[in-house]
Amino acid sequence: MKIDNNTNILIVGLGIVGGSYARGFTKAGFEVNAIDTDEETIKFALENNIIANGKAYQDRKMIESADVLIFALYPHIFKEWIEKNQWYLKSGAVLTDVTGVKGGLVKDIQNMLREDCEFIAAHPMAGCEKLGIWNSNEEIFYDANYIVVPTEKNSDEAKELCRNIGEILKFAKISELSPEEHDEMIGFVSQLTHCIAMSLMTCDHTENLEDYTGDSFRDLTRIARIDETMWSELFLLNKDALLHQMKLFTMEISRLERMLMEADKEGIKEMMRRSTARRKLFDKEKGE
Amino acid sequence: MKIDNNTNILIVGLGIVGGSYARGFTKAGFEVNAIDTDEETIKFALENNIIANGKAYQDRKMIESADVLIFALYPHIFKEWIEKNQWYLKSGAVLTDVTGVKGGLVKDIQNMLREDCEFIAAHPMAGCEKLGIWNSNEEIFYDANYIVVPTEKNSDEAKELCRNIGEILKFAKISELSPEEHDEMIGFVSQLTHCIAMSLMTCDHTENLEDYTGDSFRDLTRIARIDETMWSELFLLNKDALLHQMKLFTMEISRLERMLMEADKEGIKEMMRRSTARRKLFDKEKGE
Repeated sequence: MKIDNNTNILIVGLGIVGGSYARGFTKAGFEVNAIDTDEETIKFALENNIIANGKAYQDRKMIESADVLIFALYPHIFKEWIEKNQWYLKSGAVLTDVTGVKGGLVKDIQNMLREDCEFIAAHPMAGCEKLGIWNSNEEIFYDANYIVVPTEKNSDEAKELCRNIGEILKFAKISELSPEEHDEMIGFVSQLTHCIAMSLMTCDHTENLEDYTGDSFRDLTRIARIDETMWSELFLLNKDALLHQMKLFTMEISRLERMLMEADKEGIKEMMRRSTARRKLFDKEKGE
Repeated sequence: MKIDNNTNILIVGLGIVGGSYARGFTKAGFEVNAIDTDEETIKFALENNIIANGKAYQDRKMIESADVLIFALYPHIFKEWIEKNQWYLKSGAVLTDVTGVKGGLVKDIQNMLREDCEFIAAHPMAGCEKLGIWNSNEEIFYDANYIVVPTEKNSDEAKELCRNIGEILKFAKISELSPEEHDEMIGFVSQLTHCIAMSLMTCDHTENLEDYTGDSFRDLTRIARIDETMWSELFLLNKDALLHQMKLFTMEISRLERMLMEADKEGIKEMMRRSTARRKLFDKEKGE
């Protein structure tokens, strides 16, 4: 099942990610319909030809005619949307999302949803510390990973369609994980990193610190600018996996603290060698 | 006291930082002499016109004729150099350095040094995870901070000369801190960040993690590639300040862990708001 020019595409939620999806589909030659409850957002998207049609309310006709719906909403609003509006969906419609956590969401949505529609989860691992359609940019996907997150309820056709979205948007890599694998991974590479950046940013109260910082500190705190509504929700949805990853990290930094206290130079050097070797694997991926 | 065309400049140690100093001075029109015990390094520096004259041994004549000496060596090698070679120095010579920690070093050097020479410490807050003259580049200084780290023993003339080096190399900002202030700051913005990056890089053993990482993880671990000889020495030289900063950080991340455990959404949001507000100050500095 592939998306073609006869596929009616509806994006619900035109923030930074939904807006970038819209730009990507439009650039690839598709006609994009969109719903966002913020009027300024819809106005901007129409004026800048990011979408073909847009409504600032849940337009019944738009929902009824959609073959593929992409939800880029806060998780709890996504659930509410399904509760309220699923009865307008066309039979056979395929729904997907961009949500950063899958555990507390995917199975709930699949259980709530009408039998004649299908929800298949996906996670575009790209984003930006800035918000809103104004900052959207389809190029954020070009060197990013797109993860399809199916459950045993999903059909092969829906998986193929979901992968096809990743292809159209030109993601560098498309892969597949179970919701559990996804959340464990995301707890580590995304949520833990945000916890670290926030803690580093708020643990010291020195004024004018910005006068003395080098690139290291800037790099480690770039993501300390964080949308508190979205991220507090994502953290709590993935609480157990995230707490597990935080534990692994704090144990490791405590180990380093102990080696430092004991002036264990060889132990510190050994950890530095392992760190360097492991980090090199990541640079290779970027072709360095 | 300023550097002019009559000033005989000698750089001792042509690694990534010494090499970048050499390029900067040469580009600014000065004749640079250099000593590095690695023959390949000297050969490369001469062939690429990074220096005017170079020796792969402690050339007595070169040392004798230097007015300004810049040391870019491992701290313990710097101390050894002073012990062995200070008797060759010209009377009135001014010595400076680029070392990342000042506490266990500056006063030792000042106490060891002949009365008729002067050592004034400095720290160019720029670097690179790569090593050697091959990766040197004077442009790493253009948006970086240069810190003059004088003690009560230093003359105003030496401070002026030291600032002048920062000007010639086109640092974005030149400031002055005491060795204690410097080490506390560096413990936080540089050493703690490296501890965090290393711990994040080594705490999880999942294979093929590089397939799933987004920019956040890459940013936070860029500095996890680390020269173990240099950094283990710097960590231990600044042990107390670094341990203090690690404590502040681990207390803060534990506080976040607790809020998460208790599902304290408001507390988490409040921390995210503070983090965001504080991080914005840093972007302003970059003109964002």
